[in-house]
Amino acid sequence: MLVPVDPRKPLSLTDADARPPRFTPKGDELHERLDRAVSELGDLQEVIYADRRFAILVILQGRDASGKDGTIKHVFNACNPQGCRVKSFKAPTAEELSHDYLWRVHHAIPERGMIGIFNRSHYEDVIVTRVKGLVPRKIWEARYEQINAFERHLTENSVVILKFFLHVSRDEQAEQLRERLTDPTKNWKFRAGDLEDRKLWKDYTVAYRDALRKCSTRWAPWYVVPADHNPTRNLLVTETINARLRKLKLHYPRAAQEVLDLVHTIR
Amino acid sequence: MLVPVDPRKPLSLTDADARPPRFTPKGDELHERLDRAVSELGDLQEVIYADRRFAILVILQGRDASGKDGTIKHVFNACNPQGCRVKSFKAPTAEELSHDYLWRVHHAIPERGMIGIFNRSHYEDVIVTRVKGLVPRKIWEARYEQINAFERHLTENSVVILKFFLHVSRDEQAEQLRERLTDPTKNWKFRAGDLEDRKLWKDYTVAYRDALRKCSTRWAPWYVVPADHNPTRNLLVTETINARLRKLKLHYPRAAQEVLDLVHTIR
Repeated sequence: MLVPVDPRKPLSLTDADARPPRFTPKGDELHERLDRAVSELGDLQEVIYADRRFAILVILQGRDASGKDGTIKHVFNACNPQGCRVKSFKAPTAEELSHDYLWRVHHAIPERGMIGIFNRSHYEDVIVTRVKGLVPRKIWEARYEQINAFERHLTENSVVILKFFLHVSRDEQAEQLRERLTDPTKNWKFRAGDLEDRKLWKDYTVAYRDALRKCSTRWAPWYVVPADHNPTRNLLVTETINARLRKLKLHYPRAAQEVLDLVHTIR
Repeated sequence: MLVPVDPRKPLSLTDADARPPRFTPKGDELHERLDRAVSELGDLQEVIYADRRFAILVILQGRDASGKDGTIKHVFNACNPQGCRVKSFKAPTAEELSHDYLWRVHHAIPERGMIGIFNRSHYEDVIVTRVKGLVPRKIWEARYEQINAFERHLTENSVVILKFFLHVSRDEQAEQLRERLTDPTKNWKFRAGDLEDRKLWKDYTVAYRDALRKCSTRWAPWYVVPADHNPTRNLLVTETINARLRKLKLHYPRAAQEVLDLVHTIR
């Protein structure tokens, strides 16, 4: 299982860190464990929905082609779409830009009983915004603490937050981007801007490293997921979510005796 | 496969109509066909998402405990949650009530590329509203045509609409409601109001029949789904959706040649 990013320690994000760690299973064992984990998450999701005490927020960040879409598809495969909502954050609209950067994010927070999945998030406001110089340094530098305060507020109000950075190597990204151009069923995923971002690889690494360290908190930890190998990536994300959810002591709410007695009145 | 409700013909909604029709498969054959259909819908959903030309709207209506939740869970099981959004319509809030009844519905219409699933819908505004006498007859009577015009507008603007009425028998509903009280993991689904609604069975039948006949249109047909047997219900819904989606001639968008050539610049 993954351990949270420790803000007091340096954070390595080299190509080697993108490969499956030694402790993860391989081959059939990997796939069996993945199937079990995905199916357990499906069971947990049902209880979360019935229990209605917690909202679960899973944030996925990562470079282009790091596998955010694939992670969503596979990890939440056994979840009922009724209890699961994905929000993809794109470049902000004119209306969104005329608000503070957390406005649209707050609006998209899942309600209690739901699992919300953010495909990108407010972290773009300290990553792409910083790398591209869209706002002055003073502005983005203040955001780490604002984000920590915002997430703290959420976790104090029944939102359980898990944040995953899907870490791919430079070679794996090249491989994936090439596939988008050579596989006709993947052309639609290609964005010329991805190649521009690729040229800024090191700047992004610095921005990600700062965001992960400054915003990995007790209440909303960041996990770095070695993401070069898809099934391993899916297993690590799923097992980390499951371990957190198990701690919530979820249960199906029981009806009161006078309600249960109504069973005799049904004709 | 199901045929649309014909507005010019009388519509039978007896208990017998809730049983699996003769033409549907049974046993292993049923389950194999269901697996295939669900998996085909998953494939179709991927192309819809990539293609981005159509929004798909699936409306589910039915009495309490008719299996709306179970249908969502099973039919859309192979769909990526990222391309699939479920909206459950509850009793309107104070804000929603201060708007026209289609306001909240319009807002929830899926965008192109998405499958939207409505668990209940604006049809409640001609069903429960009518049965409970929440507005005068003149008001709800005018709504059938308003709904037809609204749905026509949507279908003329890239929204593909399929409407399913999950038809259960009176015995099957009793069975399901009893289970909610005897199975501790289902208590949370029980609502005492369901028993009140059950007493109004015939009034609801009249209201459903009118809604289905008056609003089954060329552009947005209603289907009555025999819903006493879950796998049969799921098969009929899935195959009907698939047949409609196949007609859309969906395809993965191809990139232009100058974009495809960028593959040689990736290092």
